[in-house]
Amino acid sequence: MNRKDIMMLDRDDPLAHCRDLFVRNEGQIYLDANSMGAMPKTVPGRMADFFQKGWVEKRRQGWNAFEWLQRPNQIGDAIARLVGAGPGECLAFDNTTLNLYKLIGYALKLRPDRNVILTERSNFPTDLYVVQGLEERSSGGLVVRYVEEGTDILDAIGDDVAVVYLTHVDYRSSRRRDMATINEKAKNSGALTLWDLSHSAGAVPVDLNGSGTDFAVGCGYKYLSGGPGGPAWLYVNKKHHDAGWPTICGWIGHQDYFAFAEEYAPGKGVDRHMTGTPQVIANEIFWCAAEIWNNVDPADVAAKHRSLGEVVISMIDETCSQYGAEIVSPRNYDERGGHICIRVPGGGHVVEALLDRGVVSSFRKPDAIRFGLSALAHSHADMVEVVDRLRDILATEAWKDQKYQTVSV
Amino acid sequence: MNRKDIMMLDRDDPLAHCRDLFVRNEGQIYLDANSMGAMPKTVPGRMADFFQKGWVEKRRQGWNAFEWLQRPNQIGDAIARLVGAGPGECLAFDNTTLNLYKLIGYALKLRPDRNVILTERSNFPTDLYVVQGLEERSSGGLVVRYVEEGTDILDAIGDDVAVVYLTHVDYRSSRRRDMATINEKAKNSGALTLWDLSHSAGAVPVDLNGSGTDFAVGCGYKYLSGGPGGPAWLYVNKKHHDAGWPTICGWIGHQDYFAFAEEYAPGKGVDRHMTGTPQVIANEIFWCAAEIWNNVDPADVAAKHRSLGEVVISMIDETCSQYGAEIVSPRNYDERGGHICIRVPGGGHVVEALLDRGVVSSFRKPDAIRFGLSALAHSHADMVEVVDRLRDILATEAWKDQKYQTVSV
Repeated sequence: MNRKDIMMLDRDDPLAHCRDLFVRNEGQIYLDANSMGAMPKTVPGRMADFFQKGWVEKRRQGWNAFEWLQRPNQIGDAIARLVGAGPGECLAFDNTTLNLYKLIGYALKLRPDRNVILTERSNFPTDLYVVQGLEERSSGGLVVRYVEEGTDILDAIGDDVAVVYLTHVDYRSSRRRDMATINEKAKNSGALTLWDLSHSAGAVPVDLNGSGTDFAVGCGYKYLSGGPGGPAWLYVNKKHHDAGWPTICGWIGHQDYFAFAEEYAPGKGVDRHMTGTPQVIANEIFWCAAEIWNNVDPADVAAKHRSLGEVVISMIDETCSQYGAEIVSPRNYDERGGHICIRVPGGGHVVEALLDRGVVSSFRKPDAIRFGLSALAHSHADMVEVVDRLRDILATEAWKDQKYQTVSV
Repeated sequence: MNRKDIMMLDRDDPLAHCRDLFVRNEGQIYLDANSMGAMPKTVPGRMADFFQKGWVEKRRQGWNAFEWLQRPNQIGDAIARLVGAGPGECLAFDNTTLNLYKLIGYALKLRPDRNVILTERSNFPTDLYVVQGLEERSSGGLVVRYVEEGTDILDAIGDDVAVVYLTHVDYRSSRRRDMATINEKAKNSGALTLWDLSHSAGAVPVDLNGSGTDFAVGCGYKYLSGGPGGPAWLYVNKKHHDAGWPTICGWIGHQDYFAFAEEYAPGKGVDRHMTGTPQVIANEIFWCAAEIWNNVDPADVAAKHRSLGEVVISMIDETCSQYGAEIVSPRNYDERGGHICIRVPGGGHVVEALLDRGVVSSFRKPDAIRFGLSALAHSHADMVEVVDRLRDILATEAWKDQKYQTVSV
């Protein structure tokens, strides 16, 4: 791919204007969208306004004067557009761990005659811990079954499996699972599915309803740019909306939370999975990003993300492979998630050298570096810059310099 | 109490300087500390700084460059000082509902041979919903037993009770429970205690360790001024720190959360009750308030809060009772919580008339108004102002004006 063609991609990019909707750190290309998304430019002003009008002036009255209580649904609907869900099927609330816990509990209740949660040994740690905790507490009633690396998950979906519990995109290799095929096998075996989309939503195409997903969760502060430690989100397929009480019953999940009734009654649809008071301030911040998402076409996001990745891969092949760089992530786009994992001589030292040259990436032991690509915040020209700098570091073996020998990132 | 004496109270108040550490809404006395605490003046500047240095400049590196991961403990320790707990016994994390859920689950595991959660019908709704949810899910294994109004809770603590599950201060009447006596009876009966301190911590004296409390939770955004929808907190008595896995196992509650181990292992002490990613931004806001709390003597807070309440009550007796105002909250300070509940002719209409005169209070059906008092943000002179305005409204029956007939607050 020649540079002129790459520049044309930016000229024709329908999302080109989005790059300027985020604050950039002067002189830096931030390639860790998979870890923490960029800050929308509206955040500081919006929050200054919130502190004065919301906290100082309205305070308690803010519950009615503003949309504090509607934000979880509004942000949820913005995310729903990106992941092939319908309005009212997603919710921004709590953190990813809590949403996994809530939905695995809800799903297990729908399969009372089955006692196996099927997952992968390589799943993200918090996902594993949540179900290990349930297993420990069940005193033998519940079993977590692990699919080991190299084994086909499809073969493991037996008729004792209550829930197939997977992460869509591996946080290390970026390998992306085929949701539709797994969902179908699960359905045919009578199992439900719960997917963690932390490393895919807002990056690669996701079609929750079209693929027949039962439940899903995702992180809010990675590709979605919801802000450091901001709320996560969850999805409940409409067919399960009225299936029973949620795992954690709280007043904001009550069908009439301002009635202060003595008896719990679940809120409608996905709303029952709200717990206590929503994260008002964090939601206002997330809403700044959700407004951007609401104004883009998810198909453009997917196409741009793919095209950014193709530029990176083709340029690494052309200019860095001779120095030992090797693409670890799947080359087939349909099997790859939001980031690209590259094995390089020097591993973490290269990450340090890149940082010194204004490129933020991340390191995974023993020798892989990761570039997280954002269709909104990155241009194709950014990708060229990044690979040029990587090539220089590899070609000159700059990473061997003493100052890069302490890996901090 | 004459006005000159009251003014002397302000002159001698060791916390008098604190009032100016919070932003006041021009011309308004905000008496809803029980609903949403005032904003520390440092918040807007601190957050502007956070957005630039934390989100834009450091982003993912913020996890190490700043104290994002230490804040839950740091804020917890600040709260611990106020509630008679030791360092390392409290944690700011998740919301109140979630903390109730986590700790009731942890407590129940410590009493495997008992199946009763003892609570009061008048407990705060979210507290009730949490245990109703557990009861529903247990299919008969667990029983929530309610103590009805007018019945002595002490008599109800039988030897089948696993956990005595109460709110310290009633959100309506402000009646305060005698924690030490109830804890002792529970202990003698082999039961554990879990207290909700949402309407007492930061207002009235609390002595968790001295009173032999097992577990406690509380809201962060009321008296503690943690910010709208900010994190709640929890307390685990040291003797239960190593009692087992937490209810919800997540990666931040793991003993080595950056190791990304495949197997869960609980973090030390109270840390295991952290779940997923902490609310980074909300914690930075809460920290602004925690810094203020760290610089005051809890004994001063308690004495000032008591003295504010005594001014309100004596002035209402002297100047408003003739117009039908009546103190509903207990008059004995040891039996009263953070707010004062007053029955007035006109109820909600009086709240509207007060609002029109720059006093924010709140209404509880059918005819009670509530004044939430903050030892940090209020002066005794504020109390005089408030009662003067209330007296005027009652004396002139201003609340009968058409414009106050729609109750919005």
